[in-house]
Amino acid sequence: MRKVIIDTDTAGDDTIALLTALHYFKVEGVTITGGNVDFDQEVENALYTIQVANPKEYVPVYKGFEGPLLTSVTERHQTVEDVHGKDGMGDSFFEKAKQRHEQGHAVDFIIEKVKANPGEINVLAIAPLTNIAMAIKKDPSIIKDIPRIYIMGGTNNSHGNITAAAEYNFWVDPEAARLVLHSRVPITLVGWDMCTKYSIMDDNDHREIEQLSTTGSEFFIKINRVVRKFNKEVHRLNGTTHPDTLLVAVAANKDLMTRSANYFVDVETKGELTRGYSMIDINNRSGKEPNVCVCEEVNRSMFKDQLLQVLM
Amino acid sequence: MRKVIIDTDTAGDDTIALLTALHYFKVEGVTITGGNVDFDQEVENALYTIQVANPKEYVPVYKGFEGPLLTSVTERHQTVEDVHGKDGMGDSFFEKAKQRHEQGHAVDFIIEKVKANPGEINVLAIAPLTNIAMAIKKDPSIIKDIPRIYIMGGTNNSHGNITAAAEYNFWVDPEAARLVLHSRVPITLVGWDMCTKYSIMDDNDHREIEQLSTTGSEFFIKINRVVRKFNKEVHRLNGTTHPDTLLVAVAANKDLMTRSANYFVDVETKGELTRGYSMIDINNRSGKEPNVCVCEEVNRSMFKDQLLQVLM
Amino acid sequence: MRKVIIDTDTAGDDTIALLTALHYFKVEGVTITGGNVDFDQEVENALYTIQVANPKEYVPVYKGFEGPLLTSVTERHQTVEDVHGKDGMGDSFFEKAKQRHEQGHAVDFIIEKVKANPGEINVLAIAPLTNIAMAIKKDPSIIKDIPRIYIMGGTNNSHGNITAAAEYNFWVDPEAARLVLHSRVPITLVGWDMCTKYSIMDDNDHREIEQLSTTGSEFFIKINRVVRKFNKEVHRLNGTTHPDTLLVAVAANKDLMTRSANYFVDVETKGELTRGYSMIDINNRSGKEPNVCVCEEVNRSMFKDQLLQVLM
Amino acid sequence: MRKVIIDTDTAGDDTIALLTALHYFKVEGVTITGGNVDFDQEVENALYTIQVANPKEYVPVYKGFEGPLLTSVTERHQTVEDVHGKDGMGDSFFEKAKQRHEQGHAVDFIIEKVKANPGEINVLAIAPLTNIAMAIKKDPSIIKDIPRIYIMGGTNNSHGNITAAAEYNFWVDPEAARLVLHSRVPITLVGWDMCTKYSIMDDNDHREIEQLSTTGSEFFIKINRVVRKFNKEVHRLNGTTHPDTLLVAVAANKDLMTRSANYFVDVETKGELTRGYSMIDINNRSGKEPNVCVCEEVNRSMFKDQLLQVLM
Repeated sequence: MRKVIIDTDTAGDDTIALLTALHYFKVEGVTITGGNVDFDQEVENALYTIQVANPKEYVPVYKGFEGPLLTSVTERHQTVEDVHGKDGMGDSFFEKAKQRHEQGHAVDFIIEKVKANPGEINVLAIAPLTNIAMAIKKDPSIIKDIPRIYIMGGTNNSHGNITAAAEYNFWVDPEAARLVLHSRVPITLVGWDMCTKYSIMDDNDHREIEQLSTTGSEFFIKINRVVRKFNKEVHRLNGTTHPDTLLVAVAANKDLMTRSANYFVDVETKGELTRGYSMIDINNRSGKEPNVCVCEEVNRSMFKDQLLQVLM
Repeated sequence: MRKVIIDTDTAGDDTIALLTALHYFKVEGVTITGGNVDFDQEVENALYTIQVANPKEYVPVYKGFEGPLLTSVTERHQTVEDVHGKDGMGDSFFEKAKQRHEQGHAVDFIIEKVKANPGEINVLAIAPLTNIAMAIKKDPSIIKDIPRIYIMGGTNNSHGNITAAAEYNFWVDPEAARLVLHSRVPITLVGWDMCTKYSIMDDNDHREIEQLSTTGSEFFIKINRVVRKFNKEVHRLNGTTHPDTLLVAVAANKDLMTRSANYFVDVETKGELTRGYSMIDINNRSGKEPNVCVCEEVNRSMFKDQLLQVLM
Repeated sequence: MRKVIIDTDTAGDDTIALLTALHYFKVEGVTITGGNVDFDQEVENALYTIQVANPKEYVPVYKGFEGPLLTSVTERHQTVEDVHGKDGMGDSFFEKAKQRHEQGHAVDFIIEKVKANPGEINVLAIAPLTNIAMAIKKDPSIIKDIPRIYIMGGTNNSHGNITAAAEYNFWVDPEAARLVLHSRVPITLVGWDMCTKYSIMDDNDHREIEQLSTTGSEFFIKINRVVRKFNKEVHRLNGTTHPDTLLVAVAANKDLMTRSANYFVDVETKGELTRGYSMIDINNRSGKEPNVCVCEEVNRSMFKDQLLQVLM
Repeated sequence: MRKVIIDTDTAGDDTIALLTALHYFKVEGVTITGGNVDFDQEVENALYTIQVANPKEYVPVYKGFEGPLLTSVTERHQTVEDVHGKDGMGDSFFEKAKQRHEQGHAVDFIIEKVKANPGEINVLAIAPLTNIAMAIKKDPSIIKDIPRIYIMGGTNNSHGNITAAAEYNFWVDPEAARLVLHSRVPITLVGWDMCTKYSIMDDNDHREIEQLSTTGSEFFIKINRVVRKFNKEVHRLNGTTHPDTLLVAVAANKDLMTRSANYFVDVETKGELTRGYSMIDINNRSGKEPNVCVCEEVNRSMFKDQLLQVLM
């Protein structure tokens, strides 16, 4: 089994993505970054999800940066409890898991683990890129030792989900996203547009999942209660989106990605309306070297099959 | 016939749009703004196009701002001779028309003509919005007297044509675009995405147009020689795009627009990568009142029919 | 007598500056720009001040831009009634003057007057630079015909008066300031720092002025009532500042300026804290050609003498 | 003796500041941040300076961030070998010191040392604030345990030294400066203006120092050779400035600071001309709570005495 570290602001679809990662990979560790909901709640959500997955080997959880690079102690970044529920778990308010988080900082864990396993550990990034950017800044020598970072973030040729111009993960910490995009580590990007096109589980799919009647399927249904309602109201979507799960599924199975291309990708950090906007330079107007493999098409039925398999 | 003023940086498709306007409207005047190519060349191109159209009534041409609002005399905005040819006419280097431009400034012409015909004159804007913004700033009382401004500019849910993030007209003068978008004049917007989806005349269409063997069709073929080549190389497009002509055609015939919706639209003026980016807030994440009717679908065959009729 | 046009957002010290201009120059016209207080009030203040001065020749007043270049009709720039009183005249609420403003726009008046008197008309700019920037943009051919623009604006080596980083005239319309600074017209700049160092009339000076018991001195005392209080409270200054009067006095008498130097001067338009900041590059770190003669020292007693002479 | 950590981009005056710190404080450690010259050279310079000082107790040196927060591996920040010499030591090219740097990262050293000595360790910051900002971000719990950070950076009411608007330490990493200024740790700021007013050692002073004929005085003369020439040419200064030494001297002896006041201080991160500009809100136009004690006057002769004592 291939080794990964998964960096997550665990709430909503992050949990299903974590189940998926535990299914397909040897997860060396889970690192938490500030994002979707209250930071300590995210840590609990990750620990609870691991308990649901009940993996054979122990999977450590590390706390990382509680907020974006440039957020001072007198500021707060915007969380999205309206999307995922107050607990980020569809207002399920689960009991705390028995496993506790590790001592030590996520950034140091990433650096040490990568250096101890050069060329072996892929990073699955389904949160703002604060931890990963800071690991690279703190020890740039790890850059050559990470085969690939899979990132759920940005959006190609489509509208954002937090502002009209930006997707949440890039928007929360565009400076971190920029550091990672410019790092020269090979990157595969699954944007929000892929999720709205190929990852939606509609009411029929939810019924099908419910009928599995497994621990996983029950968890899935509970987790998605609030976001399902939110999507109907705000995005006029029937069903739930699974951006993080899709990212992990793509990392697990390259055949899932039926079309992709290498483009120069950058992120706006200065704009008034466009902070966090992902510029995907498909016509190479900038003349810059491609730095990202951008997912452009997904085999939707294969994705659904993979999801069902994880939940079984 | 409905009255219009058409504001144009006459080069390439601006000419066909001008022919179209002269076909469908009583054109009260043509105002020139700095954009596609050398300003004086644009003026000549407009005068020559009027000569080709040979309208019954005299159509005056006024010179306006030679460059964007914020460009000082020590700076130059970026022209696009690579797209439209050195003369902006497919390197046709036509002889000068007999008609000459009027004295007086385009901005003053717009103000006076609108005030003399309150509620009667629509504006067709197929260039950077410098002249129109300045007319509104110089005399805000005209705002209530313009029924509608039809704008070719920006792009919805798509990539730009001058940078990855921006369409040329908005990019050249985003501050002017912002002033017009915030002016409270009713606006219909036809973006670059509509043009790439519905306005392309491919090699077969060009052959069909050539076979018309009219003054108009010959003009069309000549004008589009350079851009046809440019599109193949840069945008990987077989054929020519007709953003300006589509805008005028939509203004002439509302049935052409088979889907549209009212959204809040704004333009980025500050970004590092996104200057000129058009934010079309389809999910109303900003919570602001819609200010623009955005064209979302066009009857393509009806558009082609209208174009052929103009060239006949 | 040398010919000038004076551009003013007439409130507070603008009035004394206007008296000074009418004393020393042949004032071809007064143009009003949006700034200190309500625009129409500014127009009335200019007309009233001319009535107080009672010049031999008729001095026309023209309305110009009511607000900064980039302010749309749905926005308002910040006026400073707290500094100058609700009427911008120390809450004097004078009766309307008999003279009325002219028809025609300030910008057109400037262009026509300069072109009719090439090389003869200096411009005294004691307001945001909106009108002057727009005159230059509308007809760049006037650039060579203006011998010099004297500008009260910015600040060298000192703190601002509207924000910590910026002086009011540059802050209200930095884009206009930038267009003028980059225009290649010769410029003399008197900044806010000169005013706080050399133009303050303290309580003793006010007493001395009051004892003149002329129309001018009475006017001076009334006008300055509110600002005197404001300065004590906000700027910890005993007395009143006379930035605009100092500018006009410098233009009238070059001996008043006992030290000056040519520097490259620019203005920040993008900053978060520094919008309107005047960069005066005294050590030429930018390597750019000087574009402004910056006033660095004033003969204070000579300035006071000139002021008293105007008020007598 | 009071305990300090000193964070330095060791080149030029950093060395004399380090001698001063070793003279007056128990230096728990020296942390190196990217700034003045090549990073590894800075590390060598710190080690060599400690060897010159020859302190009784071992003083460890830790490597920190090699460049500003937002600089990616594909970018480089601007170093200033033109000011300090190629080696940052006046082109002295000293032999390597015997002591070597420690393992472990400066940021982790700061966090651990502060936590082990709560309320006891002041930080002397004479470099870009990258390390200190990152220590605070990585473990915000240390904020309450640092009594005070003394910062050499920014400038009040004066021109910058790297651009017309900005001082070098703030300019290199304004985002880090902002994080520290907003951190709620008590801060004392000694700006570039204090250094040009009170810290200059002119040719006479240099002669006096040379005549001390001590290891310290010889070191001082060598170190300052290049900067002395640079100051004559660029800043028109006769002599050398000692911003870092002044900062350390102020931290060592509060009587040195004969005037200071608490102001709200912030730093521009977005401007086009003003990146790194320090906004010192002396008139509290922002209405925000003071966060910094700003040094406004220094007893110059006392400073010189302290410097001579260190070099003896």
